[in-house]
Amino acid sequence: MEKYAVLGCGVVGSGVVELFEKNKELIMKRCGKELEMGYILDLRDFPDRPYADLLVKKIDPILADPAVTVVAECMGGVEPAFTFVKQCLEAGKSVATSNKELVAAKGDILLKTAKEHNVNFFFEASVGGAIPIIRPLHKCLAANDFSAIAGILNGTTNFILNKMIKENMDFATALALAQEKGYAEKDPTADVEGHDACRKICILSSLAFGKHVYPESVHTKGIREVALEDVELCSSLGYNIKLIARVQRLENGKILPTVMPMAVEEDNLLSQVNGVYNAVMVRGDGISKAMFYGRGAGKFPTASAVLGDMIEEVQLDHTIPSQTWENVNSTDFIEDFSAFKAKRYIRTTAADAAVLREIFGELSAEKTTDKGEAVIVTEADLNAAQVARAAEALSQKGIKLLAEYPVLVS
Amino acid sequence: MEKYAVLGCGVVGSGVVELFEKNKELIMKRCGKELEMGYILDLRDFPDRPYADLLVKKIDPILADPAVTVVAECMGGVEPAFTFVKQCLEAGKSVATSNKELVAAKGDILLKTAKEHNVNFFFEASVGGAIPIIRPLHKCLAANDFSAIAGILNGTTNFILNKMIKENMDFATALALAQEKGYAEKDPTADVEGHDACRKICILSSLAFGKHVYPESVHTKGIREVALEDVELCSSLGYNIKLIARVQRLENGKILPTVMPMAVEEDNLLSQVNGVYNAVMVRGDGISKAMFYGRGAGKFPTASAVLGDMIEEVQLDHTIPSQTWENVNSTDFIEDFSAFKAKRYIRTTAADAAVLREIFGELSAEKTTDKGEAVIVTEADLNAAQVARAAEALSQKGIKLLAEYPVLVS
Repeated sequence: MEKYAVLGCGVVGSGVVELFEKNKELIMKRCGKELEMGYILDLRDFPDRPYADLLVKKIDPILADPAVTVVAECMGGVEPAFTFVKQCLEAGKSVATSNKELVAAKGDILLKTAKEHNVNFFFEASVGGAIPIIRPLHKCLAANDFSAIAGILNGTTNFILNKMIKENMDFATALALAQEKGYAEKDPTADVEGHDACRKICILSSLAFGKHVYPESVHTKGIREVALEDVELCSSLGYNIKLIARVQRLENGKILPTVMPMAVEEDNLLSQVNGVYNAVMVRGDGISKAMFYGRGAGKFPTASAVLGDMIEEVQLDHTIPSQTWENVNSTDFIEDFSAFKAKRYIRTTAADAAVLREIFGELSAEKTTDKGEAVIVTEADLNAAQVARAAEALSQKGIKLLAEYPVLVS
Repeated sequence: MEKYAVLGCGVVGSGVVELFEKNKELIMKRCGKELEMGYILDLRDFPDRPYADLLVKKIDPILADPAVTVVAECMGGVEPAFTFVKQCLEAGKSVATSNKELVAAKGDILLKTAKEHNVNFFFEASVGGAIPIIRPLHKCLAANDFSAIAGILNGTTNFILNKMIKENMDFATALALAQEKGYAEKDPTADVEGHDACRKICILSSLAFGKHVYPESVHTKGIREVALEDVELCSSLGYNIKLIARVQRLENGKILPTVMPMAVEEDNLLSQVNGVYNAVMVRGDGISKAMFYGRGAGKFPTASAVLGDMIEEVQLDHTIPSQTWENVNSTDFIEDFSAFKAKRYIRTTAADAAVLREIFGELSAEKTTDKGEAVIVTEADLNAAQVARAAEALSQKGIKLLAEYPVLVS
């Protein structure tokens, strides 16, 4: 009988064990073979845990046991996860991981190692939790030339923005509530500043376009500065402010990955994704567009994705060629953020619509707020330099640009 | 070099050829091997077609050519598609099909044949067109015990209902428009009466629960009788009427597949799926819920799904154990529609709210219409017999039940 091992017995790792035990018969049927738990590696002590006899503190017994054919890595962080995963692959064991930090930092190396040893390194759980997105991208949609991917890839920030949109809660109060409910960490930086979403769009970009995209190459802006009044004004114009992780391929062939708050049109389904849910919209020349929606985090949703990978891995006897990308040792294929263009939602101090038109051209929405400020949505796609020049032109007329958000067109 | 063959060179078949040629380099990279078009089978004559030299009118040269490893079946209908597909599988060639009628009628037999010859019979394109749903169900979500699937699986009826909801168009006018735009056939029976959606929920039910569900076992009701006033009244209460294809597993372990117009709560994403788009919501014990959205039909969306299957098939050297189901020669596992229970939207002639409460119990919505009729949404889940008894009780008080729709709770 084949065995599996779990590295890291925290929330996700224990979820893998529990969900496997719960649905064991059904899972083995879908595997097409028998499978049982072999080892649980954790550096901590768990005296009262079930399966205490399976606990190990070193990777060696797992590497040495030929019955272990598949390993779930649920430790998080780059080390020691990277070393352990690489050793497992080199020992001829396939690995399934939920660790987005590991995939974003070391995916290229681990995919290469997997291929060299004719096993698989899968990471469905690393993006969008329970949402099937990795496998659909490289399998179901494999005939497509992709042009863009845009998603709500962080549940914590979506929960916070949702409270701002639906309940007029300000950022600080919504963050405190998210922490109270356990959706946000005590130190919420990785979520709130967009780093978590950044890692996920790196993974999707690498897979869709075939070259490793590192987090450092992605223009990343979080939601800490999103003002409640802009959330409300945007809504009144038919847009919801969402933290959008996105990659687009430009006409010059380069790709442009970004993470930032954007104003999303209400008839775009992404703007209707509420609470801690995640969603990803994919555009390709065959499908036009498709969207995937579900729980972006949580014990069993993430465990479900890890187990889905493990079930396919035990069925396979070779490396899947479609789920891979290269390290090209260059960022030439990534466009600089200065080339990013979009329609803009803009809020200024009191301003005449004619003046705003003179500076921004045609407007698709305009409104004077209760406080006498002006809000507009431009018809034209503007880049950051154009927005800066417009702010300067406004300033010369005594008008201050107070806020601006790029618009995600459906 | 391996070759592929296309059976049926209509809209979908020619889409497969065109999309393959357009993205050939990228597709071969994802296949991990070289692939080229070998044969196009069509019973009709195409003197002006490109690839005239590859056209054949009989299956024999395809069966006889060992270089052909994968076949796309895009003929539609049960015969001769069934005979040809079975022969291809028996000849050791994997098959990808867009033919939902074939899969719903003969899926069990063809899956068995594929397994006996260690090849694959894939049908991602048969449900939801471009939407990845078959592979996510049996791979990404393979660790889940499924409890329900509910979807908008027919674009034509969704387009018609959408026109009724958004533009107050009546059914006949909306149907005529759909025909004019090419979304509906001249004989729209298969779409409008729910038969198309029925075949698709049969396929999803069979895959999720492991036993072949035939169309005859599914309670199927179309949208021909949906009155514009109920569409409007439902909307005013916060529900959209949608044609919902659904399967749920009941507490007794049996499954209950249905196709019928249902009132869908506005905060359920399914109620926001507009136009010819399709969407499928899946519930499982690991994921809670996930939704898949995209184009449900069309030349390139469907071709994209067929090619996605073909790309995986050329990568595989054995039958995938998770994508299968059995013929159990029984319908004992399917519950009778009489057991179906749901909250109900109900419209009656003028009626006092107290009387309606007496008959239906607590109400979650109630309203008197401009015409003086009453509309309510019940709190209680009612089966068909209970609704019939309520109609009888109303009748004894001189009140007529004019319309009723089951409510899909998110």
